[in-house]
Amino acid sequence: MTSKSICDLFGVRYPVLQGGMLWLATAELAAAVSNAGGLGIISPYAGMKENGHPIRNLHLQIDRARNLTNKPYGVNIPLDLHASGLLIDSLLKENIKIVITAAGDPRLYTELLHSAGICVAHVISSVSQARHAESCKVDAVIAEGFEAGGRIGREELPLFSLLPQVVNAVYIPVIAAGGIADGRGFAAALALGAGGVQLGTRFVASEECIAHHNYKQAILDAGDSGTVVTRRSSIPIRSLKSDFSMKLAAMENSGASGESIGKFIGRGRARKAQIDGDMTDGDAYAGCSAGLIKEILPAAVIIEILVKA
Amino acid sequence: MTSKSICDLFGVRYPVLQGGMLWLATAELAAAVSNAGGLGIISPYAGMKENGHPIRNLHLQIDRARNLTNKPYGVNIPLDLHASGLLIDSLLKENIKIVITAAGDPRLYTELLHSAGICVAHVISSVSQARHAESCKVDAVIAEGFEAGGRIGREELPLFSLLPQVVNAVYIPVIAAGGIADGRGFAAALALGAGGVQLGTRFVASEECIAHHNYKQAILDAGDSGTVVTRRSSIPIRSLKSDFSMKLAAMENSGASGESIGKFIGRGRARKAQIDGDMTDGDAYAGCSAGLIKEILPAAVIIEILVKA
Repeated sequence: MTSKSICDLFGVRYPVLQGGMLWLATAELAAAVSNAGGLGIISPYAGMKENGHPIRNLHLQIDRARNLTNKPYGVNIPLDLHASGLLIDSLLKENIKIVITAAGDPRLYTELLHSAGICVAHVISSVSQARHAESCKVDAVIAEGFEAGGRIGREELPLFSLLPQVVNAVYIPVIAAGGIADGRGFAAALALGAGGVQLGTRFVASEECIAHHNYKQAILDAGDSGTVVTRRSSIPIRSLKSDFSMKLAAMENSGASGESIGKFIGRGRARKAQIDGDMTDGDAYAGCSAGLIKEILPAAVIIEILVKA
Repeated sequence: MTSKSICDLFGVRYPVLQGGMLWLATAELAAAVSNAGGLGIISPYAGMKENGHPIRNLHLQIDRARNLTNKPYGVNIPLDLHASGLLIDSLLKENIKIVITAAGDPRLYTELLHSAGICVAHVISSVSQARHAESCKVDAVIAEGFEAGGRIGREELPLFSLLPQVVNAVYIPVIAAGGIADGRGFAAALALGAGGVQLGTRFVASEECIAHHNYKQAILDAGDSGTVVTRRSSIPIRSLKSDFSMKLAAMENSGASGESIGKFIGRGRARKAQIDGDMTDGDAYAGCSAGLIKEILPAAVIIEILVKA
């Protein structure tokens, strides 16, 4: 059975998606990716003040994207936020065509989004999640491997094994995410059966990304062993090694209680690193692909490197 | 700078290596792989009785391989065994052309092996290990990703990120290991810059492998989430989920002492599963590729599936 190509599904030239990084995926970054032939993704929280209003911010970002590109772009909605339902409701009033959902059950909103003519891709990290998402009628799944930055699946399945198993298991198109930063990764993902790829960390280190320079520089400096996975007993997260993440890893390895770990983590760590540039106490998400990233580049060049290899 | 191809280096038709699985890599398996155009690898411990003599067994295996194939094959020597030095010494008296070293410093024996005209490939799991192995003049590195079965690197780097970084870092050929079971994985490894691949778990589930049927069947049944990594604080090992491995994981997660963990593990767990077929109390090594393996096949068919895709 053949499935629709990613390019046809999203109306893009190249099957390359930009990850919907929570604090970072602004209209400017998304438009730069979309104008270069990929699929830019907006986050409702991107560019927002710490105590801002994500729904107002989402409308603002969408307005700005409209002014910056006439190409398709999407919106990323994590399904486990307090505001998820309101964000989705507010999306229905915008002329949005593509939504990426993640971190929750795709049964919740896929039908509603479809009823508004919105194409839905859902992030999964195991074969059973992919099958479930397909049964919920999502249009594509994004198979995110253990190598990805930020939140990762508890199954800890690297892309090399996850991707072909997901491709075997579902009929809908599969987009590969995690560990990809250049043309070799793009070609390898296609060889493993993906219809497209999604890149997060590579686009953090882009000229258009609002990530703090310290964060971008830390990605360039990371090397192959520069990331660590913490919070394995709740929601595993891959971050750059830092005072914060290594202290957290040490606490977890010594069997510290969930309460003391939660207290240590506190709130606002991701924003502190990613927007404020505090690379000591902040939590800077990054995938294993960081070791492949040696330059801050314009988004259009990143896409060109991928597809012209 | 161009480096020698894996086929030229080893004198084989296809750049496909069989992993040197400690208890399992017999002359029969190695010869079947070599006769099919790949590179079979013998383990000094394969087919040996529990308290057997690895040096005598190695000679026996080599004698048998000589009778079974006139194609090239290699011997796998983990460098952290008590017998490693004696095994290498005894190898020098045999007409062996290829040795795979692992789990130790390649500085120890590479020069000695070279002086006997033996080609050396060394297993690494990070960029710094690859650079070090190259500086020790090994002829190739085997980049083993986090998805591999059995012992894995502490860095936990999946192949998608590890492989292109290693390819960038060294001039010698790089062989990809971990997570590969079919033609898609082979093609993806080549796309990421590998000159060849090494497969372990896929060859455990081969007709010629002496692995107990229960172990082979458990690989076929594993699915995508069927393996678990334990012993992260010492030498991480990826095994099939079993009563043993899941109890061990639970002890580790609850912060049990190294002493109580060591006592629980005891001795002989790998052999118990892999040779005796005790899938409850034994430790059955397997990579994430287990989820891709649905049939026990002849070694020659496994190689054909890889290279003819």
